[in-house]
Parts: sequence; structure tokens; C-alpha cells
Amino acid sequence: MAERPLVYIKIRIRHGEIYAMGPGKADLLQAIRDTRSIAAAGRQLGMSYWKTRHLLEEMRVSFRQPLVTATRGGEQGGGAALTDLGDEVLERFRAIERAAGVAIADLAEDFRTFLAD
Amino acid sequence: MAERPLVYIKIRIRHGEIYAMGPGKADLLQAIRDTRSIAAAGRQLGMSYWKTRHLLEEMRVSFRQPLVTATRGGEQGGGAALTDLGDEVLERFRAIERAAGVAIADLAEDFRTFLAD
Repeated sequence: MAERPLVYIKIRIRHGEIYAMGPGKADLLQAIRDTRSIAAAGRQLGMSYWKTRHLLEEMRVSFRQPLVTATRGGEQGGGAALTDLGDEVLERFRAIERAAGVAIADLAEDFRTFLAD
Repeated sequence: MAERPLVYIKIRIRHGEIYAMGPGKADLLQAIRDTRSIAAAGRQLGMSYWKTRHLLEEMRVSFRQPLVTATRGGEQGGGAALTDLGDEVLERFRAIERAAGVAIADLAEDFRTFLAD
């Protein structure tokens, strides 16, 4: 079993009253890219239909242009894919997460000395 | 009214099955330092008695030595203060939060161009 990380970092990008992007939305975009289906993506993440729709709707109103587009010929005849903007948003968000993780890795490791055995 | 930040970063330090430190625990330590009372700290944060006790208990079992100590002469005869370790843990955690924020500030600002007006 892989050792679980010492530090969890959760990053969210705000847009008005809601979050345009966060870990759940990024995972959903990634799963849509991988499965080429919104329904399959939700299933892969164990996310309810309504949760999936809710996250997609929050992204729809937050970004300048669509991140997800319908395709033909996917599972059950109707699939989905990321737009170019969707790909870029996902990559940029993952880069932000990585940058934060790299920046604090040593500080977090130092913190370990305070913890009980 | 101050503009709300574009990015929220939540950092938690894990210890075994629980979190040794996170935003709520750091705020509690800070409020104890400011108010010199566990009860007053909880009130200041709008935190229930049980929540306050729960966070203190999680910190108690996570760190090598106590972060909080009882004092005499505080509010209602019994106060509290941070130990030297408590001060150091709080400062180090805030430094980790700041380091993450600094590291991603520019990337997050770039991300803003994707967002709807």
C-alpha cells in the first residue's frame, strides 16, 4: 500500500459566488477526457448524476467558453470530450496544484519533526 | 468591502488517520494566543465547545508535546496559552500557507483570463 502523503493541498479558483475550478471539477474534466462520456466519468468518480451536472453547470457559467462538448459515437451513442479550452484549463489547474506542492514540500517535511511518532 | 481572493488554498498536515494541523486548528491556536482562554477562543471563532475540544484533542495526540497549556489568572480564573512549541507550530504552518500562496499567485492570475466576466 502506498504511503499516504503528509500534506493535503486543496486549491479552488473562485468566480463570483461559486468556485470555477477545484479538485472535484478537475477530476471530472479528467474523467470526461479519459472516458469520453459524462455519464461514465461520473460513474468512474462515484459521483451522482446530480453532482456531476451541478459541477458541469458551475463550470459552464464560470468560464468564457465551454470546457466540455458533446460528441457523437460515444458510449450509448452520445459522448463528450474536452474542448481545447477544457484541456488547457485542466492542465493549468494541475500545474497550479503541482506548483503549490513543490513550494511547500520541504517546509512540510520540516514540520514532521513536531509530530508524535 | 475587501475584494475576496481569487484563490483559496487549504493545507492540512496529516498524522496517521487524522489531521494534525489545518486552517481550523491554526485559527484556534491563534485565538487562544490572542484571548488567553480556550473558551473565549472558541467563542471568537463561533466554534462549539465540542468542536473546540475535538480539535484540541486531535492536536494533543498528534504532536510530540503540548501546544497549549493551562494558565492561572485568565478569564474566569483559568486561562490558557500556547507553549513555545505551540507558537512555533503555528508560525511554521502559517509560513507553509504563505509559501503556497506566493508560489501560485502568478499562475492563478493567469488563470483569470479563462473566466467569464
